[in-house]
Amino acid sequence: MNNKQWILSKRPVNKLSSNNFDWVESEVEVIKDGEFLVKNLFLSFDPAQYDWMQETESYVEPVKIGEVMRAVSVAQVIESNHDKFKKGDILQGSFGWQEYAVSDGKSGYMRPFRIPRDVPITAPLGILGNTGLTAYFGLIKVGKPKQGDVVLVSGAAGSTGSVVGQIAKIMGCRVIGTAGGSEKCKWLTRELGFDAAIDYKSEDLNSALKKHCPNGVNIVFDNVGGEFLSESLLHIAEKARIVLCGAISSVGKAQSSISISNYMSLVIKRAKMEGFISMDFIQDAPPAIDKIKNWINEGKLIYREDIVEGLENAPSTLLRLFSGKNRGKQLLKLADPE
Amino acid sequence: MNNKQWILSKRPVNKLSSNNFDWVESEVEVIKDGEFLVKNLFLSFDPAQYDWMQETESYVEPVKIGEVMRAVSVAQVIESNHDKFKKGDILQGSFGWQEYAVSDGKSGYMRPFRIPRDVPITAPLGILGNTGLTAYFGLIKVGKPKQGDVVLVSGAAGSTGSVVGQIAKIMGCRVIGTAGGSEKCKWLTRELGFDAAIDYKSEDLNSALKKHCPNGVNIVFDNVGGEFLSESLLHIAEKARIVLCGAISSVGKAQSSISISNYMSLVIKRAKMEGFISMDFIQDAPPAIDKIKNWINEGKLIYREDIVEGLENAPSTLLRLFSGKNRGKQLLKLADPE
Repeated sequence: MNNKQWILSKRPVNKLSSNNFDWVESEVEVIKDGEFLVKNLFLSFDPAQYDWMQETESYVEPVKIGEVMRAVSVAQVIESNHDKFKKGDILQGSFGWQEYAVSDGKSGYMRPFRIPRDVPITAPLGILGNTGLTAYFGLIKVGKPKQGDVVLVSGAAGSTGSVVGQIAKIMGCRVIGTAGGSEKCKWLTRELGFDAAIDYKSEDLNSALKKHCPNGVNIVFDNVGGEFLSESLLHIAEKARIVLCGAISSVGKAQSSISISNYMSLVIKRAKMEGFISMDFIQDAPPAIDKIKNWINEGKLIYREDIVEGLENAPSTLLRLFSGKNRGKQLLKLADPE
Repeated sequence: MNNKQWILSKRPVNKLSSNNFDWVESEVEVIKDGEFLVKNLFLSFDPAQYDWMQETESYVEPVKIGEVMRAVSVAQVIESNHDKFKKGDILQGSFGWQEYAVSDGKSGYMRPFRIPRDVPITAPLGILGNTGLTAYFGLIKVGKPKQGDVVLVSGAAGSTGSVVGQIAKIMGCRVIGTAGGSEKCKWLTRELGFDAAIDYKSEDLNSALKKHCPNGVNIVFDNVGGEFLSESLLHIAEKARIVLCGAISSVGKAQSSISISNYMSLVIKRAKMEGFISMDFIQDAPPAIDKIKNWINEGKLIYREDIVEGLENAPSTLLRLFSGKNRGKQLLKLADPE
């Protein structure tokens, strides 16, 4: 049986492009004892994938040159010599940019697990998976919102940012989001209930923050870094918490060239800036997922998915994330379950 | 009676110099009911004074143009219409760069208070005052050291840094300090018990940190900012705490031009960077001062004072702080108590 794969062919230096990947076709491996074969159904796209492509140290091993590009996905078991995972099971795991993957059920970036049957098949890749948990843990565990806090979210129309803002509203905060373009901004205020949205493409961030946060910001949930972060530091309130969640604006730049200004505001305002990844709180995932599920059922939390089709589009789909093209959680559909 | 004063004549823009101050002589005011007159004995010099000279918002009101330069000092009451403070009392307060000051006992940056009689008269300005408390609170309350932690202190030969390093040693940490010049570095390792010292003037910080902290730094106590801070971020361990305590390297630069690189290490290492000022923990000062006193008496904590004489030298004494000339807590002596 033929397998199609995208492998990492060269590391991105000054920019990320489709040229960083090569299309490869080969025979699907024969599964050994204790292994199983899955067919990928939906691939997840996440800003962290850019970090995985770097050679520099991160919180996980880099993808090696010549290796299938790492991605979390939902896949169905189509053949099994494994005593836990059986033919027909629908799993989440790091099965990568390929049609078929062989797994022993334990190695890889993410140990495969069966997804619940009572939720949409794509939800565990986004709102009920890493996206939802990143928003929830970053806001609740690191940001520690209190009723009445002013919360500023960058990349607010993105899959994580849009959830952060809505959870902050549920917690009784006043929420301001930044996004690129009036369409996204309208979505934030009209559909998601943000108190205000700032269009960074047409508005001056500094004056907009003065207008919308005259008494300062208590929590900055930053998804973009760079200029946004530097500017927002001039508007923090005393004892503010700046939650760092990746940094899309850093893509294509060497780490040493990514700098921020105004960090001395942290002293003046006795504030703190903290990085996190959702894996750090993984033991608290089940109750967090239950909460998110309930908020969705109660109509308090809206989420969007942006679904492209066809494995051949994997590189261009990844690029959508960094150009601000995606509307909600970015996914790529390869097949329907059987 | 004649009074001599240094007033703030213009705000420092690109650099701090003696030209920012004017020497003024005038008659000492006659004290009214509820007021008292003090004679300044010792003035304290602190990096924060540079911030007070700026027009930009900080955690306290800026000094106004034409106003006596703000400074904390130890002074003796020489005349009193106040029911709490009597002639002969030795007080600490923000009496400024002048020979005599009138006070109502409640206004000003620091409410005056009687200093204990059982300690050296200058100690409340340094080791048993703001310097000691800044070191203690910054390390203990913000840095939260655990036995075996690797602690990196910049400006380690300074009045705060030298105390931070010694307290970290008392807490069972491995302590590395940076300082300018071999004389300062020798003092750190030979007399203060630091495990290693890095001479930033002659050594490459990056290679030195690789050598001395191969497993990463758990606590960075930063007194200087800028390049040191950027570089140290590349050497932090997981869950590191970066304690921000002013930033001497920022002196003479607009806040927006002070930037740091590598802040994304905070995400990669799930670390936090936090600013503080000692006043935030003022309710815990009495037990902290007791601890510091005991460590001094047990010979576990050494401190140095650098005493210049004569009010005419106040501006040049302030400059010593920022050129790295001072050896220990910088003071200016105006008079002995009567």
